[in-house]
Amino acid sequence: MTQEHLNQVAAAVNAVKAKGKINHFYLIACGGSKAFFGPAQYIFDMETEIPATIYSSNEFVHRMPKALGKDSVVLTCSHSGNTPETVKACELAREKGATTIAFSHLVDSPLWKAGEFDVHYNTKDEADDSNGRDAMLYAVVFGILNAIQPNEKYERAIKCVDNLPKLFAANKEKYAARAQEFGEKYKRATILYTMASGANYDVAYSFAICLMMEMQWINSSAIHSGEYFHGPFEITDYDVPFIIIKGLDECRPLDERAHAFCKKFSKEITLIDAEEFDMDGVCDDLKGYFCPLVAGVVLRDYADTLADHRGHPMSVRRYMWRMEY
Amino acid sequence: MTQEHLNQVAAAVNAVKAKGKINHFYLIACGGSKAFFGPAQYIFDMETEIPATIYSSNEFVHRMPKALGKDSVVLTCSHSGNTPETVKACELAREKGATTIAFSHLVDSPLWKAGEFDVHYNTKDEADDSNGRDAMLYAVVFGILNAIQPNEKYERAIKCVDNLPKLFAANKEKYAARAQEFGEKYKRATILYTMASGANYDVAYSFAICLMMEMQWINSSAIHSGEYFHGPFEITDYDVPFIIIKGLDECRPLDERAHAFCKKFSKEITLIDAEEFDMDGVCDDLKGYFCPLVAGVVLRDYADTLADHRGHPMSVRRYMWRMEY
Repeated sequence: MTQEHLNQVAAAVNAVKAKGKINHFYLIACGGSKAFFGPAQYIFDMETEIPATIYSSNEFVHRMPKALGKDSVVLTCSHSGNTPETVKACELAREKGATTIAFSHLVDSPLWKAGEFDVHYNTKDEADDSNGRDAMLYAVVFGILNAIQPNEKYERAIKCVDNLPKLFAANKEKYAARAQEFGEKYKRATILYTMASGANYDVAYSFAICLMMEMQWINSSAIHSGEYFHGPFEITDYDVPFIIIKGLDECRPLDERAHAFCKKFSKEITLIDAEEFDMDGVCDDLKGYFCPLVAGVVLRDYADTLADHRGHPMSVRRYMWRMEY
Repeated sequence: MTQEHLNQVAAAVNAVKAKGKINHFYLIACGGSKAFFGPAQYIFDMETEIPATIYSSNEFVHRMPKALGKDSVVLTCSHSGNTPETVKACELAREKGATTIAFSHLVDSPLWKAGEFDVHYNTKDEADDSNGRDAMLYAVVFGILNAIQPNEKYERAIKCVDNLPKLFAANKEKYAARAQEFGEKYKRATILYTMASGANYDVAYSFAICLMMEMQWINSSAIHSGEYFHGPFEITDYDVPFIIIKGLDECRPLDERAHAFCKKFSKEITLIDAEEFDMDGVCDDLKGYFCPLVAGVVLRDYADTLADHRGHPMSVRRYMWRMEY
């Protein structure tokens, strides 16, 4: 991580540390950026009694939860930094006196200006993955936790962040052949369900709504592994494809149960079992928290090969950025 | 509401009132029962600074959020009262010292025994809808709010609960012809998206995962009206069917925006505009909160007519209750 990035993290963390009281963490973004906050919400939920809630930006703007105020910490994210709902949410939160931290790829973007503390991140294509989005978020999240309730666990977690580029590269390589196989096998799929729980649920959500619906125009939906048995499992049939993520956190038994049932009736299951991930350099008690980041990178490659086999580039849009909405 | 039901509500509300401090409301259930808590979460979020969070029961069981303890209030619900994950969640919460309130149709069910305070509700088919599930939940929710921060608004809300049976009957009649039309038009649909936000999001969720996937084996997914523009809208096409609920709460502008865009590119939109609902006997400032209950009743009829036209009764299951899972 560059000194500039370290400084940005330190400024955000120190601002949170300086607060006398924190009543609520709000994690505010849209679509893929909203899903990006999923693992952070899980971590806060497991590590602190301070509530942490995710809202889609425009719901937050209109809803303005009653607890939002000067004791709140609001994290926002927009890749371009110009998602209007997210900029507005950040502005409103700041007006209410909340401490605002904005993550964006674009320095000096509208979101960058709206947030009191700004954190830049590199994209995956750029040279230095150690300043990537996941790394910057986890540095801030574990930095905040360590500031409000110091613990050597959080110090170890902050060190693990440095291993992310290596981890991503190793797992991309490990899953490359399986990604190819997936792309070829499902190139004619008209629907594809994803399933996960716990820290990984939003990886499944992001795959469904961004990678499939948005970027491939394939019908999709993320099913929570626990909810599966209370409705969705009735859709299971021999020809209905599911991607199932088995995570490494406390909720893994939910994924195991869903997989055990689903494989009895569907012949089209793609299993991503995180126990197979190369998690080198991540302490055992932190693997559950780092797992979704690796799962996200692996699944992106699955989508990329699918796009390749379908001749429908991931960059194609029919509405997004092409018209007013 | 019968005296027995009033007593159950009073016992639950008084137990919450007697707590010196409340740190968190947890709303714990599975599937349709989980969705049932959606509007309650919205109400708590808008009316009090005490956080309120919904978890699918088994996720709650394995996750056990750190803030759960003697200062917490845990509401659970299972129709049969024997959903194992929900019973377990209620037991664990009670062991942790939380005040537990269990909603169930079945008196003396395992959930009934697990919960410290129990609230019975009638099914819609039974004689007295004034003791129905929605009525009992809202009596408890507004009772709790009025106990912890007395307000004439909550007293009015409690009175509005008595109007629910009349309201449900009036709107069922009002939408009967449209339900028939829907059933006929979509009897051959292989996928059906639902869309809503705010207090109504979980009505869309319940329609998708229970009424469509579980009871009709039709592919479905609930799209949040705000999230629609950040991925899912790319799936929109002339022949892709959507049910869009326009609510009456603060988030209505999200639904309006989604509908305005969607109707440009899909010819298959079924609009449920709550502004058309007969909301007689509900005060203006409470309509947003009561709207999802009415929307739920109307949409149930839409699903029922669809089932009728498809010759696939809503009661049919291939896995649920038929095997171990």
